[in-house]
Amino acid sequence: MAGYSDEAMQEFRRVAFALADAARSAILPHFRSASLTADNKLAAGFDPVTIADQAAEDAMRDVLSKMRPDDAVLGEEFGEMPGTSGLTWVLDPIDGTRGFLSGTPTWGVLIALADETGPILGVIDQPYIGERFHGGFGAAECIGPQGTRRLACRAARDLSEAIVFTTFPEIGSDAERTAFQRVSATARLTRYGMDCYAYALVAAGQVDLVIEAGLNAYDIQAPIAVIEGAGGIVTDWQGNPAHNGGCALAAANPEIHAAALALLG
Amino acid sequence: MAGYSDEAMQEFRRVAFALADAARSAILPHFRSASLTADNKLAAGFDPVTIADQAAEDAMRDVLSKMRPDDAVLGEEFGEMPGTSGLTWVLDPIDGTRGFLSGTPTWGVLIALADETGPILGVIDQPYIGERFHGGFGAAECIGPQGTRRLACRAARDLSEAIVFTTFPEIGSDAERTAFQRVSATARLTRYGMDCYAYALVAAGQVDLVIEAGLNAYDIQAPIAVIEGAGGIVTDWQGNPAHNGGCALAAANPEIHAAALALLG
Repeated sequence: MAGYSDEAMQEFRRVAFALADAARSAILPHFRSASLTADNKLAAGFDPVTIADQAAEDAMRDVLSKMRPDDAVLGEEFGEMPGTSGLTWVLDPIDGTRGFLSGTPTWGVLIALADETGPILGVIDQPYIGERFHGGFGAAECIGPQGTRRLACRAARDLSEAIVFTTFPEIGSDAERTAFQRVSATARLTRYGMDCYAYALVAAGQVDLVIEAGLNAYDIQAPIAVIEGAGGIVTDWQGNPAHNGGCALAAANPEIHAAALALLG
Repeated sequence: MAGYSDEAMQEFRRVAFALADAARSAILPHFRSASLTADNKLAAGFDPVTIADQAAEDAMRDVLSKMRPDDAVLGEEFGEMPGTSGLTWVLDPIDGTRGFLSGTPTWGVLIALADETGPILGVIDQPYIGERFHGGFGAAECIGPQGTRRLACRAARDLSEAIVFTTFPEIGSDAERTAFQRVSATARLTRYGMDCYAYALVAAGQVDLVIEAGLNAYDIQAPIAVIEGAGGIVTDWQGNPAHNGGCALAAANPEIHAAALALLG
């Protein structure tokens, strides 16, 4: 990681929080609104794009154009905009659109700041609960209903005692599902359907592993920064960097990461 | 339903809210606490009993002993206590203990008041979010982060457009799972692992169906009252009353209920 001054780090966080605040304001009027509509972005699948999704990315791009005009932007809804600073803001305005459409409070706004090494700062924001998990530069915390708390991943335990979260059985190829099931069959408990909230729970020391496939860069960069800030590890299923998307293995500690990697490979 | 006076209905709600408040205070200090411990209640399964679970039921029974000493109590943790009034408070201090242990905000405190006809009043309370879904006597509302909102189940749509929630694939017999999959394969979207929160989302007009098996009376009585208050329907998989537990089919309206029932039977 490049060396950043304290002032730069504080500025990055200030901008990230401004983005999260803008997204909250854009999204909340639409959550659990009867008038909510959804288009199918992919003909073959169920990938709803809501008014809220686009409004939130618009709002965040507007903030960046004022506060950080030299940085690049990569957003789920409106693609890439080049920059000159070497830094990129990576935005997923609503991660978990299926959950959003269902009214569950486990979707989130994902905001990451990346340099050439990958994500250096990340925010997982849950607007309805009013809960903000953020991490980077060796630390992570949660600001939420119970105040501000330092985040720390849980200590090592045997895989047979571990809690695993995933979006399977919904997604992934047959081969990926089979690999996942080897881990799931060994773990104590598997939970489904939590979207990005699952990664926040790894950082919060509640969950040992999150295993997913079919990710985009904007799905995983914020979780990487939050989990690494809390002492955890995120890689792909071969142990390589995951920040360009694909398969992800998020782990609370090196021991459980190695145990899961051995079963996924 | 027996005729109750306005004063009686207000008193029932006042007591139900006092119970929910007591449970919140007892549970929240333990949520996402590093010191949380869990026992296995069932040797064969994973049914953790937390300190929080027992503390919350203790606290609620204490409230009832003062406010409603003549009513019976049926609680998940401490069983039945007979009464003389013909009314029974049915309590599940933490529905969704697996979710609680994982740190997810979709477990809940379930409180129902039942007479000889079944549940007449229900509360689904989510302490961490600070969200209270309650219903009975022909109405339901949610008091939460966005203020107080009237709850109304969504209008009829084809099963192919419906959102279904369930705890499958975790629970149920093979035959039950096969029946569930007939509905799931037809529906637009199936989501997993939301515990009692799924029922609240039916009442909130977000979800069309919740389908579960292996329930106890204390798992389903509060959801029945909240959903019926919002205009929905809850039965077992044969269309009979579900308030004694077993299989449950919670539906937003008669049309989607009939469509699901035809596939489950």
